[in-house]
Amino acid sequence: MGNTFGHLFRITTWGESHGGGVGVVVDGCPPRVELRETDIQPDLDRRRPGQSRIVSPRKEPDKVQILSGTFEGRTLGTPISLWVRNEDARPEAYTEMATKFRPSHADFTYQAKFGIRSWPGGGRTSARETIGRGVEILAYVKQVQRIAAVIDPERVKAKDIESNIIRCPDSHTAAKMIRLIEKVRKAGDTVGGIVEGVARGVPPGWGEPVFDRLEADLGKAMLSLPASKGFDIGSGFGGILLTGTQHNDPFRARRGKVYTTSNRSGGIQGGISNGQTIYFRVAFKPVATVMHEQDTVNVQHQNTTIRARGRHDPCVLPRAVPMVEAMTALVLLDHALRHKAQCGE
Amino acid sequence: MGNTFGHLFRITTWGESHGGGVGVVVDGCPPRVELRETDIQPDLDRRRPGQSRIVSPRKEPDKVQILSGTFEGRTLGTPISLWVRNEDARPEAYTEMATKFRPSHADFTYQAKFGIRSWPGGGRTSARETIGRGVEILAYVKQVQRIAAVIDPERVKAKDIESNIIRCPDSHTAAKMIRLIEKVRKAGDTVGGIVEGVARGVPPGWGEPVFDRLEADLGKAMLSLPASKGFDIGSGFGGILLTGTQHNDPFRARRGKVYTTSNRSGGIQGGISNGQTIYFRVAFKPVATVMHEQDTVNVQHQNTTIRARGRHDPCVLPRAVPMVEAMTALVLLDHALRHKAQCGE
Amino acid sequence: MGNTFGHLFRITTWGESHGGGVGVVVDGCPPRVELRETDIQPDLDRRRPGQSRIVSPRKEPDKVQILSGTFEGRTLGTPISLWVRNEDARPEAYTEMATKFRPSHADFTYQAKFGIRSWPGGGRTSARETIGRGVEILAYVKQVQRIAAVIDPERVKAKDIESNIIRCPDSHTAAKMIRLIEKVRKAGDTVGGIVEGVARGVPPGWGEPVFDRLEADLGKAMLSLPASKGFDIGSGFGGILLTGTQHNDPFRARRGKVYTTSNRSGGIQGGISNGQTIYFRVAFKPVATVMHEQDTVNVQHQNTTIRARGRHDPCVLPRAVPMVEAMTALVLLDHALRHKAQCGE
Amino acid sequence: MGNTFGHLFRITTWGESHGGGVGVVVDGCPPRVELRETDIQPDLDRRRPGQSRIVSPRKEPDKVQILSGTFEGRTLGTPISLWVRNEDARPEAYTEMATKFRPSHADFTYQAKFGIRSWPGGGRTSARETIGRGVEILAYVKQVQRIAAVIDPERVKAKDIESNIIRCPDSHTAAKMIRLIEKVRKAGDTVGGIVEGVARGVPPGWGEPVFDRLEADLGKAMLSLPASKGFDIGSGFGGILLTGTQHNDPFRARRGKVYTTSNRSGGIQGGISNGQTIYFRVAFKPVATVMHEQDTVNVQHQNTTIRARGRHDPCVLPRAVPMVEAMTALVLLDHALRHKAQCGE
Repeated sequence: MGNTFGHLFRITTWGESHGGGVGVVVDGCPPRVELRETDIQPDLDRRRPGQSRIVSPRKEPDKVQILSGTFEGRTLGTPISLWVRNEDARPEAYTEMATKFRPSHADFTYQAKFGIRSWPGGGRTSARETIGRGVEILAYVKQVQRIAAVIDPERVKAKDIESNIIRCPDSHTAAKMIRLIEKVRKAGDTVGGIVEGVARGVPPGWGEPVFDRLEADLGKAMLSLPASKGFDIGSGFGGILLTGTQHNDPFRARRGKVYTTSNRSGGIQGGISNGQTIYFRVAFKPVATVMHEQDTVNVQHQNTTIRARGRHDPCVLPRAVPMVEAMTALVLLDHALRHKAQCGE
Repeated sequence: MGNTFGHLFRITTWGESHGGGVGVVVDGCPPRVELRETDIQPDLDRRRPGQSRIVSPRKEPDKVQILSGTFEGRTLGTPISLWVRNEDARPEAYTEMATKFRPSHADFTYQAKFGIRSWPGGGRTSARETIGRGVEILAYVKQVQRIAAVIDPERVKAKDIESNIIRCPDSHTAAKMIRLIEKVRKAGDTVGGIVEGVARGVPPGWGEPVFDRLEADLGKAMLSLPASKGFDIGSGFGGILLTGTQHNDPFRARRGKVYTTSNRSGGIQGGISNGQTIYFRVAFKPVATVMHEQDTVNVQHQNTTIRARGRHDPCVLPRAVPMVEAMTALVLLDHALRHKAQCGE
Repeated sequence: MGNTFGHLFRITTWGESHGGGVGVVVDGCPPRVELRETDIQPDLDRRRPGQSRIVSPRKEPDKVQILSGTFEGRTLGTPISLWVRNEDARPEAYTEMATKFRPSHADFTYQAKFGIRSWPGGGRTSARETIGRGVEILAYVKQVQRIAAVIDPERVKAKDIESNIIRCPDSHTAAKMIRLIEKVRKAGDTVGGIVEGVARGVPPGWGEPVFDRLEADLGKAMLSLPASKGFDIGSGFGGILLTGTQHNDPFRARRGKVYTTSNRSGGIQGGISNGQTIYFRVAFKPVATVMHEQDTVNVQHQNTTIRARGRHDPCVLPRAVPMVEAMTALVLLDHALRHKAQCGE
Repeated sequence: MGNTFGHLFRITTWGESHGGGVGVVVDGCPPRVELRETDIQPDLDRRRPGQSRIVSPRKEPDKVQILSGTFEGRTLGTPISLWVRNEDARPEAYTEMATKFRPSHADFTYQAKFGIRSWPGGGRTSARETIGRGVEILAYVKQVQRIAAVIDPERVKAKDIESNIIRCPDSHTAAKMIRLIEKVRKAGDTVGGIVEGVARGVPPGWGEPVFDRLEADLGKAMLSLPASKGFDIGSGFGGILLTGTQHNDPFRARRGKVYTTSNRSGGIQGGISNGQTIYFRVAFKPVATVMHEQDTVNVQHQNTTIRARGRHDPCVLPRAVPMVEAMTALVLLDHALRHKAQCGE
């Protein structure tokens, strides 16, 4: 069950880096929605390696195929099977990994859990669905190490995000971030940072009061992304510096429509959307694969060292942007269907 | 389904502040575990209002009753129904809430979702289970507004946590925190802060690689707690200031046992426990109920003001400590059973 | 998870015969539905022992209480906790059961599974929800041992079912059934039979094509009732005597509305309702508790004999009728919500 | 969620008859189990069309590929993706189905549910897993229309089942069944019958007491098979002719091991296995596709007629045998893992 996400709109992913590629089965999609490979491919391209000089230059065409669930370009309501065939798996490039655990990777924990491990690589997936109904989902790089941009979640535009290779809508800060990543890459090192996710136009009422709170499901979705170490929403960790009087979002009404004059809640109150913009941040650690020799142990539990080969991502952030968008869409669509089922809209 | 948490060890909660009280049905508990009301009551007492001068003085005896699932003091393997009867529900104290939405509470979003609302209060739950098997779960207050304690998750002791009413194991910092909360309470205001959770002795191998990653399920659990706004694990948001070389946790082995010489991963790598101490932080916003007049709207969506009555919590943190422990235990026990089912231990 | 039924509209039951009584938590109920104890009590009365001379004369008032999930007589959309407190539990009447396994009861299998057993009795539950939207759900006794009634599922009426204590709408056959049960009861023995369930007015489109087929979920629901041993739908086991040409239900249309001129499908085709009447049968074995000495073993696995004491049901069928209705309603309501969520009505 | 079966060991299927083929993702498989395509292919061959003169002569090689979840011939503990590519999809053979609903097929109900339909065919799946641990799972044809075999579930052998093309272990009755099917096929008609499933060696304790009773989950599994109309277990529908005294299975013990001297319970009591042989029957209706003109309606809801083309199965039973075995294995393995997780073996 650990490879399934969502309740009504739900995905089950599979795949290792070697062999047959990776895939996802999407169950619960409403029928008669237009869907072709060309609707999905652009977002795969956004998360693909080799797309710019600041990401891993590995060559992965990542071409998606729809194997089931559509007919004449529209969804059938049956499971949609998506497959990205593996083109360029060269397990021989990874032979050292057969016997050594890379530090801060999952090699050791997989071995501990399963007692077996596909040492050439690990499972990995990404998908992105749009919701329609006027909900707009965006994400962007807000911070790379110490370089932070100030972005207004209410006004940020997709075209500004896509205008540069780091996917930070503030072009001045973006240039600084790119310079930092290039410097780090040359040093054989890596950096992390923060991606901010935004959902505008979510109507009031999506979510649940207790466990499946909208922020809890968003948090779980983001913390399931590789390399993520933290999540906060609205005022988040910064909000603890305010008092309750300062922190509360006063309600006001205009022509019968309720809004808040501030949005420290981040669009969610008591687990349920309040109609304001949802925004949150995800912390991504620096990528664990560095071009330096590091202490580690081998599968016989003896001390040794390891040094990464090949060329890897100096910074996961620009490729994490479409993943944050995709997971946001999954959570919101699932809750939209759940709300419709129980409360009738 | 939104009121159920966990897969194999799972709880379903119910209850509003008025009427019949609150309850939880625990399904999937292993049979023949010793369990009586007296095992559960102490943790309910820790989260009860009225326990000290820095929490709400409301009188709630919160006596738990076991209605099913045990026989002669041991669990049967069947659902365990726990019930805390409501003693002191005075809906008349809340009549203003029948027509006005309190800012930054869930009044508005519940109304938006369900079109109906039990205006006297909201559902609320807490439970705490111990895991046995040598796993030790603790939580403590790490920060209140700007006052932060430095605590070593490897060495913190339960008795130090319980030695003061704020539940911060550093008594010097605890005294400062208590003074701040008393000052804030007198001003009719509230403050938030950070609770840190720790799990020591978790063996390598618990968790899942993709969606139900151990940190993702911990994150969801914590973000489902009322007033929580953020979660990070291990190095968390602070880890983004390091490079990959600085951030990685080198593996070493001693007498065949693998450990890491640092623990920026927070005990989890690739979604699976690595045998090191798990530690994470949860940000709690300042309580929304303040003793000041605030702008809001009524149920007819007209502008008005509201002022809280009665006496509420100036700071949720000391009572959040047992909730963080309880949710940690739920996540770990569920994953322990899942690991045992699939991988055989 | 084994104590939960349904996906969107779902119930979790708990309770043993001794101690705190039995209860159910209903999650996913749409909000603003009128619901009071008086809506539920009549169906509990229908399944209660002591209601007539052909069922067990045990005294169980079975008064239901709503502990949560409603406010001023309407559902809140939050979990509804229902509780039937235990009035008349006399474990001392069951002491022989502490050490011996009753044949064809679950005493042995519970002990085998859990290694512990609440020997005074077992969990048991029933509930009944109405669906509205013009769907009418009925059940009745169709056969007691060899005495079978011929009933038209299209025309059977609730008042005819309730006109006699066996709940068979054909009063002539009902009288014969009652005489048989009285004779069997005097002989200290028991009989089984068949309950037929009917759902009229289900619109086309409810159900799923593969695993959660509507007939599969109905079958599981019925086979989860105590003492049930078989389920068939439409032509069922009898349909295998026909050829495909004889068995098919021809489609016809009248004023744009599609119907079938026969209904051997039982209202479901390919797992999905076709708009015709759904009807199915459930076989209930003769109750295992008989007033004769029988061979069995004790908990030390030694041969012994056992003889039931007290007064038990000579025939479970009249009390099974409301249970079949209740489980039918649960399945249909859950699928109604699922269809609405995915396909939009 | 309707395309997923099982809780801990669970499968998600996808696929239509046209396009990309059919597939299944198996999640929760224990790691380090030997698994190659050659372990799976033989059972696919048993359910393949074209295998004998009494099944559809369609040509479907049905070659299975493992796309993920194994490494060097052993399972990884990650999702196993199995794919059967479509070789021989000729949608042009089905053009009449684009506009007309076939009687007693799912064409109409799919259209009613989803408002769209892949008219060239429908999803279909099969898989078979072996359990190990000494559990032996078998199924065989017990009855074709009126021709019934008497088989002892305790002693039936796999090689006798596979010794003839109808898969009835009584060779004399098998010959009669085959003659009937050939006669029916020549007449352009179809017949149904009964498959009996058997599981020997299941230890006491698997199953759940309330909803996920072992017989309820077996019943759901069987009723999810195409063309199934009924399920009964142990004494089943026939058991209602006995009194309780006659029906009960007396317990006896021999050298500390408990057994029953009869097995009308069918190996399950109170939802939990009792260590005796599990056996049950599944009724399959005559296949709906017949070579005769039949009344139906078209997608505009006008009356018309339809006549099947091509060559179809005169009797689904021989091909249903491996499906019954596969679904039995899925249910038992899922419950074995659940029992191990909660009760520790």
